[in-house]
Amino acid sequence: MLQGGPSTPSCTSTPPDCFPLSLRHTAECRSETSAEPANRKVRANNTLTDLSRMRSTVNFYLCYLLCLCLGLACVVCVCVWNSQWRGGFAWDGSALQFNWHPVLMVTGLVVVYGIGAVVYRIPLTWGQNKLPWKILHAALMLIALLLSIVGLCAVFDFHNAKHMANLYSIHSWIGITATALFALQWVVGVAGFLLPCSPVSLRKLMKPVHVWIGGSIMVLSIAACISGINEKLIFTLKGNTNETQPYSSLPPEALLGNSLGVLIVAFGLVVLKILSNYTWQRPDPRPEDVAYAPLFQEENE
Amino acid sequence: MLQGGPSTPSCTSTPPDCFPLSLRHTAECRSETSAEPANRKVRANNTLTDLSRMRSTVNFYLCYLLCLCLGLACVVCVCVWNSQWRGGFAWDGSALQFNWHPVLMVTGLVVVYGIGAVVYRIPLTWGQNKLPWKILHAALMLIALLLSIVGLCAVFDFHNAKHMANLYSIHSWIGITATALFALQWVVGVAGFLLPCSPVSLRKLMKPVHVWIGGSIMVLSIAACISGINEKLIFTLKGNTNETQPYSSLPPEALLGNSLGVLIVAFGLVVLKILSNYTWQRPDPRPEDVAYAPLFQEENE
Repeated sequence: MLQGGPSTPSCTSTPPDCFPLSLRHTAECRSETSAEPANRKVRANNTLTDLSRMRSTVNFYLCYLLCLCLGLACVVCVCVWNSQWRGGFAWDGSALQFNWHPVLMVTGLVVVYGIGAVVYRIPLTWGQNKLPWKILHAALMLIALLLSIVGLCAVFDFHNAKHMANLYSIHSWIGITATALFALQWVVGVAGFLLPCSPVSLRKLMKPVHVWIGGSIMVLSIAACISGINEKLIFTLKGNTNETQPYSSLPPEALLGNSLGVLIVAFGLVVLKILSNYTWQRPDPRPEDVAYAPLFQEENE
Repeated sequence: MLQGGPSTPSCTSTPPDCFPLSLRHTAECRSETSAEPANRKVRANNTLTDLSRMRSTVNFYLCYLLCLCLGLACVVCVCVWNSQWRGGFAWDGSALQFNWHPVLMVTGLVVVYGIGAVVYRIPLTWGQNKLPWKILHAALMLIALLLSIVGLCAVFDFHNAKHMANLYSIHSWIGITATALFALQWVVGVAGFLLPCSPVSLRKLMKPVHVWIGGSIMVLSIAACISGINEKLIFTLKGNTNETQPYSSLPPEALLGNSLGVLIVAFGLVVLKILSNYTWQRPDPRPEDVAYAPLFQEENE
């Protein structure tokens, strides 16, 4: 933040672009104050910066494509498992109602959540006004949250209809914590980052906490999904009827369930990689830009 | 990396200290070229930097203390569970041999691993030669790896003695992947970062991948532990004998096991927070320091 702070020589006329600001900024400032040998070095630096920028952008899009493919594979896999192997869906208190639970939790709390979390990392959006992307981020997260809540309702309703206990396993403790934290994060996020009345200083304080809690929810979701898949396969593949083979003999359904777990972990790790890569973060505006920006733009951070 | 690169004005005489280099570097360079008003601004900036450094250091140590306390709580909890509730330990193919599995996996793959992962983040070590800390990091990771491998041996041996299948559940798939990735990471890490023959350019390329794989192993460990605790409590607390109440009625053992899961997740999230905080990373040496450093120091990166 202090790079190019108040004591930086003036070089404020450059338009925003798609690379962490410290690099461009240093090079451009020097080009105004140095002689020809220094300028040659600056041009060489700029070429390096362009190459580095291009490589970073290509790497991001490869990672993002992998993220989308893994997300799609997760949704397909959990739908196929529950529709083809577990008998399909209903909302009548039967086992078919339970089937909504894995489908909605994987789709909401993992896939839509993960895709919503990395929206700001797309370099294409960095030169544009942040507000529409903020609204898209909040909207995707709202969809993810609603899907997760309906997914929880499905399992509570099923348990109540069958007079089974709720919230006793560590799977349920982790899952309910992830959803509660997600709901809190969404409400605080909208209040702190979208409402025009929240001050920029508060947003700057909140941002690293928001990003960390966001990553933590992803970790909790992965742990809840893996333990949930494990529990479901233990409960259903007992091998004590003619209908099912035991989980320990790895029948096709067990392979499908385990593969879903592997896909979820892979998706989550790619999302966490995108979130943690410093060079893929949307660049912060420079302090002098903020100082001269109109109020609306300032509030738009 | 490019900040203060080859075209930076010379200001190489300052000793290394404990704060991300870009901040000090910018302020010090200006103090050589600016007049009195600029110097006043530099002094104000330095005061801000000192305050920011102190706050960052205090926050780190609070987080680190929390990490150590949670790690200790995890080890105590898993030992109490298996010694007091599961009958203790043996290496004779009985259920008592299995009890080594959770104890060694939680202690090795989670606690010692997590503490070893954040060694470089301790600000106290930043002003010192990196080599002893590298050796400590590698040694802690080796202890963690050996504990994990013995923990895996315990469960394989138990399964084989009881003629039970190995590696069929998603819990085992995730756990074995975490341990295999950890072993690979350790070997590649020692070869790439500790052997004097590996070039600095290779180390710079490897470092972000090493850090990311390190965080991913932590996520895999958390998922494996949560699914393992869930599975163990489902298998043991069936409630069909007079000895145990069912898991669904949340008897004291279930509460203890679930609490262990919560502690593991909390510990893992604190470790991931420490690893992902950019301001808590050991500062990279400046390019001009590397250029004039003796060979051994350069290889020591």
